[in-house]
Amino acid sequence: MKIIIVGATGTMGKHLSTAFEKEHEIIRVGATSGDIQADITSPDSIENLFRQAGSFDALICTAGPSYVGPWKTMTHKEFRRGIEGKLMGQVNLVLMGQHYINPKGSFTLITGALTHEPVLNFASASAANGAIEAFVRAAAIELENGVRINAVSPTVIEDSPQYFPFFPGDIPVTMKQLEYGFRKSVFGANTGQIIKPY
Amino acid sequence: MKIIIVGATGTMGKHLSTAFEKEHEIIRVGATSGDIQADITSPDSIENLFRQAGSFDALICTAGPSYVGPWKTMTHKEFRRGIEGKLMGQVNLVLMGQHYINPKGSFTLITGALTHEPVLNFASASAANGAIEAFVRAAAIELENGVRINAVSPTVIEDSPQYFPFFPGDIPVTMKQLEYGFRKSVFGANTGQIIKPY
Ligand SMILES: NC(=O)c1ccc[n+]([C@@H]2O[C@H](COP(=O)([O-])OP(=O)(O)OC[C@H]3O[C@@H](n4cnc5c(N)ncnc54)[C@H](OP(=O)(O)O)[C@@H]3O)[C@@H](O)[C@H]2O)c1
Ligand SMILES: NC(=O)c1ccc[n+]([C@@H]2O[C@H](COP(=O)([O-])OP(=O)(O)OC[C@H]3O[C@@H](n4cnc5c(N)ncnc54)[C@H](OP(=O)(O)O)[C@@H]3O)[C@@H](O)[C@H]2O)c1
Repeated sequence: MKIIIVGATGTMGKHLSTAFEKEHEIIRVGATSGDIQADITSPDSIENLFRQAGSFDALICTAGPSYVGPWKTMTHKEFRRGIEGKLMGQVNLVLMGQHYINPKGSFTLITGALTHEPVLNFASASAANGAIEAFVRAAAIELENGVRINAVSPTVIEDSPQYFPFFPGDIPVTMKQLEYGFRKSVFGANTGQIIKPY
Repeated sequence: MKIIIVGATGTMGKHLSTAFEKEHEIIRVGATSGDIQADITSPDSIENLFRQAGSFDALICTAGPSYVGPWKTMTHKEFRRGIEGKLMGQVNLVLMGQHYINPKGSFTLITGALTHEPVLNFASASAANGAIEAFVRAAAIELENGVRINAVSPTVIEDSPQYFPFFPGDIPVTMKQLEYGFRKSVFGANTGQIIKPY
């Protein structure tokens, strides 16, 4: 399979690229590094990414910038970080990618437990996650040629100890569990699912 | 109670204004009509709305424009209609309104069954709904001074027969059921809830 991983240079993306490159062709995409650079907040940059990458079998996205900070003093521009990044960035990867993906291909997006289990300071990411999860269900019934779409929704992950203090009581998802979540979406047959890898 | 109803001139808003004005002071807000005109896609216009309305006890929003059309030919600008309208419009009412609302006041936003039950052509509204539902849970744990926030999530409503063909098999929510949903949020004590009035 030819698999595009957007966010391949991040904590999740590095693990997934290494795990999947043994058996698949991986195109690593990052904002500032990787085989191809793309900024998912820019539709032009996404179009350019697909032109360079060409047709593909699976797209995984583990890039989803959002804003972290207290609600009381947040500005609408700060809140928008999650909307332009984790939400519109991922939606546009699917919207534009549908014209490049091979029949029976798959999109796998990233959300997180914040959809249903909020913590302080992460309202921007919560909203983006909730949007992506509802979007995945909606896009699943519209995509054609057997193309599938799912999201993986972990709690805080093992390799991100810097986030542990924000998520009291969250049992961290191991990198292996996270990988299983993505395997289920990319190599399975489900569509419209929110996969909780724990 | 002093209750601001944004979308008061629409199908839902008209019913709610008439039902609640018997016992409460209602400020009707619409894009082009009502006591105060405001465009929720513009942060400046929202700020202006609150300056004119002054402090209040409850804000109900039944305004939430989104885009309707097939996914295959949708552009990112079309998809954005729901993001700028139903999502950012409602978020900004809360973000800015938190500085004008009275202690123990409440925000009640509108979503819809599309969060969990997609239909063709409504991906933009599904995403906005999912975002608002996750946002309501996140904002509920951040709002101070006893201020509450909930969303009402109906299926297609009785007074909107023009939408029935898009929602095959949806049992329409009656206007009375819809009103009960809003009553539960505004006059109850819950917060962070997605109220399904059926
Ligand atoms: N870490 C966790 O515990 C956790 C738990 C649940 C959910 N999540 C979600 O999972 C996602 C990834 O988390 P992570 O910890 O792996 O993140 P990360 O280590 O910060 O990596 C982010 C990756 O995304 C890329 N990226 C950032 N902004 C981009 C943009 N505008 N356009 C294109 N690529 C961009 C980065 O590229 P460069 O390196 O080139 O900048 C990097 O490859 C986030 O959405 C996060 O909310 C994380
Ligand atoms: N109708 C249904 O069956 C149904 C079911 C579930 C969920 N919903 C959701 O419920 C919401 C309201 O539905 P509805 O049928 O009552 O809608 P509607 O009859 O079209 O009324 C919309 C109201 O919102 C106002 N409005 C529109 N754009 C605005 C903007 N940018 N700024 C400020 N106000 C704006 C309109 O003002 P003007 O009249 O001045 O333009 C009007 O008062 C929508 O978000 C819809 O997705 C509807």
